[in-house]
Amino acid sequence: MSEPETQELGITESKEHSPGEWYAEVVQKAGLADYAPMGGFIVTRPRGYALWERIQDHLDGWFKETGVENTYFPMFIPESYLEREKEIVEGFDPEVAWVTQAGSDELDERLAVRPTSESIITPFMSQWIRSHRDLPMRLNQWCSVVRWEATDTKPFIRTKEFLWQEGHTAHRDEESAWEETMLRLDQYRRVHEEVLALPVLEGRKPEHDKFPGAHTTAAIESLMPDGKALQSATSHYLGDGFAEAFDVTYVDEDENEHVAHTASWGLSWRALGGMIMTHSDDQGLSLPPTLAPEQVVIVPIWQEDTRDEVLEYAADLAAELDEADVRVELDDRDERNPGFKFNEWELKGVPLRIEIGPNEVQSDEATVVHRPDGESAVEDREGIVEAVSDHLDTIHAKLYAAAEQDLEENVREAESRDELLGTIGRHGGIVKTGWCGDEDCEAAIKDEIAAEIVMVPLERDTDPVHEECVVCDDTAVETAYFAKSY
Amino acid sequence: MSEPETQELGITESKEHSPGEWYAEVVQKAGLADYAPMGGFIVTRPRGYALWERIQDHLDGWFKETGVENTYFPMFIPESYLEREKEIVEGFDPEVAWVTQAGSDELDERLAVRPTSESIITPFMSQWIRSHRDLPMRLNQWCSVVRWEATDTKPFIRTKEFLWQEGHTAHRDEESAWEETMLRLDQYRRVHEEVLALPVLEGRKPEHDKFPGAHTTAAIESLMPDGKALQSATSHYLGDGFAEAFDVTYVDEDENEHVAHTASWGLSWRALGGMIMTHSDDQGLSLPPTLAPEQVVIVPIWQEDTRDEVLEYAADLAAELDEADVRVELDDRDERNPGFKFNEWELKGVPLRIEIGPNEVQSDEATVVHRPDGESAVEDREGIVEAVSDHLDTIHAKLYAAAEQDLEENVREAESRDELLGTIGRHGGIVKTGWCGDEDCEAAIKDEIAAEIVMVPLERDTDPVHEECVVCDDTAVETAYFAKSY
Ligand SMILES: [Zn+2]
Ligand SMILES: [Zn+2]
Repeated sequence: MSEPETQELGITESKEHSPGEWYAEVVQKAGLADYAPMGGFIVTRPRGYALWERIQDHLDGWFKETGVENTYFPMFIPESYLEREKEIVEGFDPEVAWVTQAGSDELDERLAVRPTSESIITPFMSQWIRSHRDLPMRLNQWCSVVRWEATDTKPFIRTKEFLWQEGHTAHRDEESAWEETMLRLDQYRRVHEEVLALPVLEGRKPEHDKFPGAHTTAAIESLMPDGKALQSATSHYLGDGFAEAFDVTYVDEDENEHVAHTASWGLSWRALGGMIMTHSDDQGLSLPPTLAPEQVVIVPIWQEDTRDEVLEYAADLAAELDEADVRVELDDRDERNPGFKFNEWELKGVPLRIEIGPNEVQSDEATVVHRPDGESAVEDREGIVEAVSDHLDTIHAKLYAAAEQDLEENVREAESRDELLGTIGRHGGIVKTGWCGDEDCEAAIKDEIAAEIVMVPLERDTDPVHEECVVCDDTAVETAYFAKSY
Repeated sequence: MSEPETQELGITESKEHSPGEWYAEVVQKAGLADYAPMGGFIVTRPRGYALWERIQDHLDGWFKETGVENTYFPMFIPESYLEREKEIVEGFDPEVAWVTQAGSDELDERLAVRPTSESIITPFMSQWIRSHRDLPMRLNQWCSVVRWEATDTKPFIRTKEFLWQEGHTAHRDEESAWEETMLRLDQYRRVHEEVLALPVLEGRKPEHDKFPGAHTTAAIESLMPDGKALQSATSHYLGDGFAEAFDVTYVDEDENEHVAHTASWGLSWRALGGMIMTHSDDQGLSLPPTLAPEQVVIVPIWQEDTRDEVLEYAADLAAELDEADVRVELDDRDERNPGFKFNEWELKGVPLRIEIGPNEVQSDEATVVHRPDGESAVEDREGIVEAVSDHLDTIHAKLYAAAEQDLEENVREAESRDELLGTIGRHGGIVKTGWCGDEDCEAAIKDEIAAEIVMVPLERDTDPVHEECVVCDDTAVETAYFAKSY
């Protein structure tokens, strides 16, 4: 058996010492994505796309159970439509990719490649909504959007085109639109916890950092191992401003015309990026079982004289697990030795490895090994389905617990500007402070250490953690969560 | 109860006399799609998108069972990539939408919004394929593409942006690539027959009408009630031309480097358009049960004194059908009368209506009515699940049979130019003739009656239907299928 150099296959960068290079290496070597020829774009390979499909399956199911209908709106938005909501155009103009030619003709009006679709969806809601019976209207689309940011490309985290879903809903009143905003935020939290094994913080964006035109922007933040915060989903209560701009009104039971309240909410493949960055290690990707394309890989270990019995035993085990709806792969390749296979499946992130050698066959057992920490156990062949299911649950819990501990240890408080700067400088992470609500106080910190207010508490009436603003010493009106962020 | 004018809700155009207007009206009033503000684009509403999702579910399942993996490639293709395969660039250049600006900057290189993705996918296949063990490689993506055609917009049939899937595969040799081409063609036929209840013809495009650069373009053609042919899916055997152009090579067991053979295959939402146009009528949409979002609608018919018992009986029936995985809707709206509900659900295309009145409650029965032809039957309440399942099968069979009869009656032969022109002029449909293989002979017919050769037989060695070319009287080399087409 000829083996390619393991170096070439394995991860060479260190998660601790060169997290950026390490992340790029994991993404590429685990076969998730490659860089496209145009800077800022990536190609999502089958293994990466399978992860996205699984996120879609879960979320889309929850959306549909809660009244959401899928749609598809054009990928282009005429410039004049984008201009109808002035905060949208100001917010997105610098990032819009424009189609100006088709065939050999110049277009009369430039078409924006959608950076987000409020400007094209809301006018149609206006046409479709007549009476209170049409409300709530809940539309969603799974698509890609383009935002021409000039920063460094990081697959799934920072790309000019990214995959997401965008939900757009219209409601009778503030209460219903607000409930929607919170429902979607809760579903986003749930997909992080239950599918991605990622603990998150739910918060609100400070006023000056809301979605353009929104009343409230709620967001899901997670904390990466390098101490930076990552925002992977947002849910906006838009008030009645968009409805006013696009004339979304309805006739209520009182036969009067009212302006609707709208919400929009989106989760992007950043959630995937956060999962990769958090759980993976210097051996490569490490996937939570709910998300993993293969939950279990069986590696048979044989010599010439034990080959047949080992393979038969392994195949039988694979069949039983498959029958029980465990996603199982039997790696019976002749041309690779077990050590090579162990490394490869670790690199690819398979949560549970089962080793079957002559000993296991002899004693009617199976040796199982957890991907995240290498913990192993010997299980009886009988009852293996239940044992595997328990191990998968344990692996999910381990991944979640490690991330949770990291999050808990890295949310700190600071009572002074120096303490804030020092804490972020030394540890990274999130630092809670009192804040007067003035954007300038955030700007002062940003200038010095490139940390910003990633969120404030979701509840508006929460007492601030300290009585004074950490920067200007004026009375604090809320708690600011400062962090460096992606 | 106040009723909106039925006119406003119902179909006012005639399928027979104004098929174009009728089609547009069905699509809009059944809530499938609306026209977007930019000419040539549509907005796919929840009901329309749900149909597309169901097609996706079936096809995607079949693809995955046969070794296909989903991916996502960028929506933009650099101009220099498009130019690497000269026939692609010549074939698509006149239809490409170009991104030339981003934010306030002019781009150095124009980016094509993908008209199809061979030019961006094949170079990556070249990177990923090293050895014969990497083959076959079968990639697919569900996405939209843009082709700037200037013709009239027809939802799902002719739009500048359309939804489709595009499969791209690489193989060791011609045999394997050809098998792939035929396998996908077969799956396309199957989705037409089993899901859309549409009989189709499988054929090959004449040489001058192949996909740019392809060795063979096979296609699925169906015949619309207005006598025009509709192509809804194609499967291309690309030979080794694309692999040569993009350097897709592999090391075989003989340790020599070989050029791969590639194939690509796509089905678009035109299949949906063909289904709508074929089955629907002057009452509106008529959906095959496999595709329908609601397979059964239950309409309770009550007077004040029978309301409770009728509604309870209807709700119990709905629960039992739902339990049996029938997609059922109970229309218990108080504010609409049964006649209004009948019309609305006919417009929306629900295959089977169940009427429940006091008589049905009394005698423990249910009255079922077929959407396509109004045929009704009374079924025992006991055993209703099986009866409903049989009725749904019958409805599928009816839709298919009607379309099949139309297809069979409208494929004719012609032995002379006059007969060809006369037959298409009088009947439309498809006319089989002998053909010498010369594009000029097709052009002569196209000029006179706007009919073209939509296909030739899939098997290259089939004897032509007549010995002489219908136009020039030279020896015929194959059978041409002439038709007007969408
Ligand atoms: Zn301050
Ligand atoms: Zn001829």
